[in-house]
Amino acid sequence: MIQPRVLKGFRDFLPDQESQRQRIMHVLAETFGAIGFVPIDTPILEYTEILLGKGGGETDKQVYRFEDQGGRDVAMRFDLTVPFARFMAAHLHELYLPFKRFHMAKAFRGENTQRGRYREFVQCDFDIVGTTAPSADFEIILMIDRAFRAMGVNGVRVHFAHRGVFNAVLASLSVGDDAPEVLRIVDKLRKIGAEDVRAQLSSLIGPSGADRLLEIVNADGGNAAVLDTMRRVAPDAAVHTDRIETILNAADELGLGDRLVLDPSITRGLDYYTGIVFETFLVDLPQIGSVCSGGRYDNLAGLYTKEELPGVGASIGLDRLMAGLEELGVATMQAGGADAIVMCLDENLMAHYHLIAEQLRAAGLRVEVYPEPRKLGQQFAFAEKKGIPAAILCGDEEHAVGAVNVRDLRTRETADRVSVESAVELVRGIRG
Amino acid sequence: MIQPRVLKGFRDFLPDQESQRQRIMHVLAETFGAIGFVPIDTPILEYTEILLGKGGGETDKQVYRFEDQGGRDVAMRFDLTVPFARFMAAHLHELYLPFKRFHMAKAFRGENTQRGRYREFVQCDFDIVGTTAPSADFEIILMIDRAFRAMGVNGVRVHFAHRGVFNAVLASLSVGDDAPEVLRIVDKLRKIGAEDVRAQLSSLIGPSGADRLLEIVNADGGNAAVLDTMRRVAPDAAVHTDRIETILNAADELGLGDRLVLDPSITRGLDYYTGIVFETFLVDLPQIGSVCSGGRYDNLAGLYTKEELPGVGASIGLDRLMAGLEELGVATMQAGGADAIVMCLDENLMAHYHLIAEQLRAAGLRVEVYPEPRKLGQQFAFAEKKGIPAAILCGDEEHAVGAVNVRDLRTRETADRVSVESAVELVRGIRG
Repeated sequence: MIQPRVLKGFRDFLPDQESQRQRIMHVLAETFGAIGFVPIDTPILEYTEILLGKGGGETDKQVYRFEDQGGRDVAMRFDLTVPFARFMAAHLHELYLPFKRFHMAKAFRGENTQRGRYREFVQCDFDIVGTTAPSADFEIILMIDRAFRAMGVNGVRVHFAHRGVFNAVLASLSVGDDAPEVLRIVDKLRKIGAEDVRAQLSSLIGPSGADRLLEIVNADGGNAAVLDTMRRVAPDAAVHTDRIETILNAADELGLGDRLVLDPSITRGLDYYTGIVFETFLVDLPQIGSVCSGGRYDNLAGLYTKEELPGVGASIGLDRLMAGLEELGVATMQAGGADAIVMCLDENLMAHYHLIAEQLRAAGLRVEVYPEPRKLGQQFAFAEKKGIPAAILCGDEEHAVGAVNVRDLRTRETADRVSVESAVELVRGIRG
Repeated sequence: MIQPRVLKGFRDFLPDQESQRQRIMHVLAETFGAIGFVPIDTPILEYTEILLGKGGGETDKQVYRFEDQGGRDVAMRFDLTVPFARFMAAHLHELYLPFKRFHMAKAFRGENTQRGRYREFVQCDFDIVGTTAPSADFEIILMIDRAFRAMGVNGVRVHFAHRGVFNAVLASLSVGDDAPEVLRIVDKLRKIGAEDVRAQLSSLIGPSGADRLLEIVNADGGNAAVLDTMRRVAPDAAVHTDRIETILNAADELGLGDRLVLDPSITRGLDYYTGIVFETFLVDLPQIGSVCSGGRYDNLAGLYTKEELPGVGASIGLDRLMAGLEELGVATMQAGGADAIVMCLDENLMAHYHLIAEQLRAAGLRVEVYPEPRKLGQQFAFAEKKGIPAAILCGDEEHAVGAVNVRDLRTRETADRVSVESAVELVRGIRG
């Protein structure tokens, strides 16, 4: 006997959980479609050279990499961004620009699982590639806002900033080679607090530089006030602050101004972003951190093509999000089981039970047929376990007169000898 | 520069193809849900021991297997059946029986790609586990029938037989150890024809045995006549032929009798089936072979648990099916792009364009916004490439009076200065 275990960091999805995940993915796909994003897919397995490029980063050690039957050095994708870059380079001649795609799929990292991370996880990435227009920046933010509302999650805030503004401040402070370290420190603001950040920055770039940087990073008082501070502290970055203003105005005009927060503490660490950067927080669950992050980049696919592909995009980690939704008890996304079950009272009526079920299904109901003539108590227990609210009972006598009995499994009330048409109405009423 | 290639036997899915695949998967999921099947998922990576058991088969050489970072012997799943068996053993105490699940997901085999097979492919498996009732056998057949009709594919025939009847004939012929070879030969009937099968069988079990076997395998004249032949040639298999009759009667009662064919040539080779076995053919495309196969088995998860789990199930290979649908030109499944695109005439109206789009979306339309003020010809070319039938144009003058122009991109007719409400109606008309 082999023990039926799964690998550490991997998991099965039981029906309730998987229904929930599929429902979320379907709602997201519909929302993307409404805004003109199209789906793509790429292989889970790729040449290691494609996925890791010149390699050497922290990610590399986490990659599932091996030699295949043909002696090829292959690896399982660890995100959806690198395969998308390869995809764009490969299919540029078949596509139009700007190209708006979404991709919801599994990726794999042999990460330390102690932080509650999974080694197999579902990402949902969406990008607009081939344009530098502020309209695209705004559309990604609009898309995030719509996506969460479609999932039944209100109280979502997109916090955004612009890497260009931050870089202008760094340049004015002559930070030079210390820039990556400065970014790393500022990125910890939420975790370690303003005082520790100030101390660490002071020792790196001196107290006055730290103050100047923190003036912009800590700016608050509403979007307009923050934008004013940015303009004052980074007067050389007018092209970027003008873009921020354009985005804020569009958000106001579309009524999502209060859900978009200009927040210069957002830097996205060492990522490859060059324009706007953003993170998304749930107002009622800030502790789970950003549930959707991204930004604008200059050149998506430089590793694989000479064509410059600027773009803007975002990524939702569905696993963390699903954990969050569960914690918030978002009810609209609950799994929907069958509406009714046709019980088996007499196995000779098997075909008739399936016929009744098909008639109910033709009216749009979701209907089970219990396959065996077990004791009714067992059949009721089965229905309860599966969360089915109504039962259809039909024995010889009901069959003879073309009728069925309909039982509400919660109130235990039964309507006797009704037509199938009436049964449809009764089940709809019981389902609510 | 790294060449942006994919591994042999793997492929990208471009938007049209991926939309089609997602649409099919969604239709299937809805159909499963209507009959009370619930979705599950399992990891793509598992312990090799779980996937290969004692191993040694032809499949083993095709499995993507390696040692992970923690020194574990792991492999990528090569089907959805083995993981399902492991899943049932692992979660038996959390589930109810009979358990009806579907699973649509990728599997991987390092197969010879010359036969038009892919190394990464999507399977759709569905099973009813924990019951031996004929009702479940019938429900799987009903499910297949519904699934193909839901996908817009008519002209589907489920050919079925019963392994027990075949085994009874083999026993009466005292075939013994040659049984697997006999099965292998009969399974080639469609490929090599009756004469070659007779010759090969004769040399293995003698001419009279071959004749007796072929009498049942070649039986035809309609389901009733075939059943009569089976009863005559295999009188010891009454319990199985009675079950066949029950299934045929149910099919007649539910009006799918003409789509279910009793066909004793179906044996499913060396598979682990013990009861009914079936294959599904497209009437207009028989050459692609079976698009959905399966059968009843005695014990799903014997490798991982002592609990006996009898069941019945089927599997659709979505890749072959999609190729078939494309050949048949099944139109109902065509990819649906956006209904309209809001053109960019003036970048200062960016927010207004998004606002118009949101108003159209609120009316249920799928709407794009072009992000940049490019020449109109370029924007029209983009819309055509993406298959968008209608354009919304709004310049300064239209904006000043709260109106838009709506252009039918196929007829090139434009309705000038209409309200957004009228635009909704016009786009609906253009979309058709």
